[in-house]
Amino acid sequence: MPLSEETRKKERKRIATMVIDLVKERGSEISFATAQTESGLSRSRFEWVFADYDDLFDAVAGIWLAPHMEVMEKVLDADLPPIRKMYEFFRKRFVISRDRWRADPHNFTMICEMGAANFERVRSYVDLADHYLCEIIVQAQAEGYFAGLEIDETLSLINQMLANYTIPDALIYLGDKLNEEKLARIVDTIFIGLSKEAGDEAKGLNTIRVATS
Amino acid sequence: MPLSEETRKKERKRIATMVIDLVKERGSEISFATAQTESGLSRSRFEWVFADYDDLFDAVAGIWLAPHMEVMEKVLDADLPPIRKMYEFFRKRFVISRDRWRADPHNFTMICEMGAANFERVRSYVDLADHYLCEIIVQAQAEGYFAGLEIDETLSLINQMLANYTIPDALIYLGDKLNEEKLARIVDTIFIGLSKEAGDEAKGLNTIRVATS
Repeated sequence: MPLSEETRKKERKRIATMVIDLVKERGSEISFATAQTESGLSRSRFEWVFADYDDLFDAVAGIWLAPHMEVMEKVLDADLPPIRKMYEFFRKRFVISRDRWRADPHNFTMICEMGAANFERVRSYVDLADHYLCEIIVQAQAEGYFAGLEIDETLSLINQMLANYTIPDALIYLGDKLNEEKLARIVDTIFIGLSKEAGDEAKGLNTIRVATS
Repeated sequence: MPLSEETRKKERKRIATMVIDLVKERGSEISFATAQTESGLSRSRFEWVFADYDDLFDAVAGIWLAPHMEVMEKVLDADLPPIRKMYEFFRKRFVISRDRWRADPHNFTMICEMGAANFERVRSYVDLADHYLCEIIVQAQAEGYFAGLEIDETLSLINQMLANYTIPDALIYLGDKLNEEKLARIVDTIFIGLSKEAGDEAKGLNTIRVATS
């Protein structure tokens, strides 16, 4: 007898949570076969819940990243000026990752490696974060920030400047060198300095023109 | 009969260059034993040239990073305004890495992995780059930039904002999303925006103080 879609959803959540706990306990990635054995389900039942490893990984990533999703949406809905909104947009996710890293650096590293090895599966989360960040950029541009820049350009530049506060691996390498104080300074620096005009001085176009004229 | 120090130096260079070629040819890391076999030296002679794998790795890193060292020193000595100097300081190294990545992405990835696995051995290069960057920061501060910030604070913030242009792995993930145009914009943004005052707006301290007073 086929089980209801609701049962399937509950089973996905239960097993994905179990897999996260097992990764923590055993300190290693959990295979599809191990997840099935530990789930207590028959193989056919298990494969009705999860089509394959990718599908299982999606469910695990969904649970692992749920707090990030929640804070992003909260910040987006908040009535804040764009500078503070962007700061909170990065800070709240950074704090979630840092707390996890501090609580169990080994487990955190393991989960990062799983994420890196399955990057295509987490791309949809990255895309959604980009989509939200674009909304903040539009709000900022309406107030005169990032003048003359396309939204996509601005997005890419901001992501590059703040990469250490979004890529979880950065915590493994930089640890406490990453903190809220510096994040706030970088966000302010971006709002003060980033516009279409930024770039010519560094490349020294004018200087060269003068020198060769 | 012991060989001269000069011979030892020549052998180090020859064998380290050979190891880089072998990594390229075979697409895998080269062990201490393989390097010895391929060097044509007896084991005792080889161990007179290289004390251990770490020592061999140091010689390999020295050759691999020599072009980076050279351009950093050239830029430091150049008579340029601090903004252009900082831009060139990052750009020239970025271009070396990008050319290598474009020429052979697989080999580039392999070398990055070797570097990551032996990070403590390349730390001295990172420290030297930091030292040079501090000199540029001091020059910039003398002209009024980064006002009110300690040198070390400024160093850390700039390294964080430009990490994608120094960490070679970034090319593997971001590829052509990294380019000179964006690098120039980020350097200008840093010079325009970064000072002791940056940070308060993002954290919204004033707003909170007003709200609770």
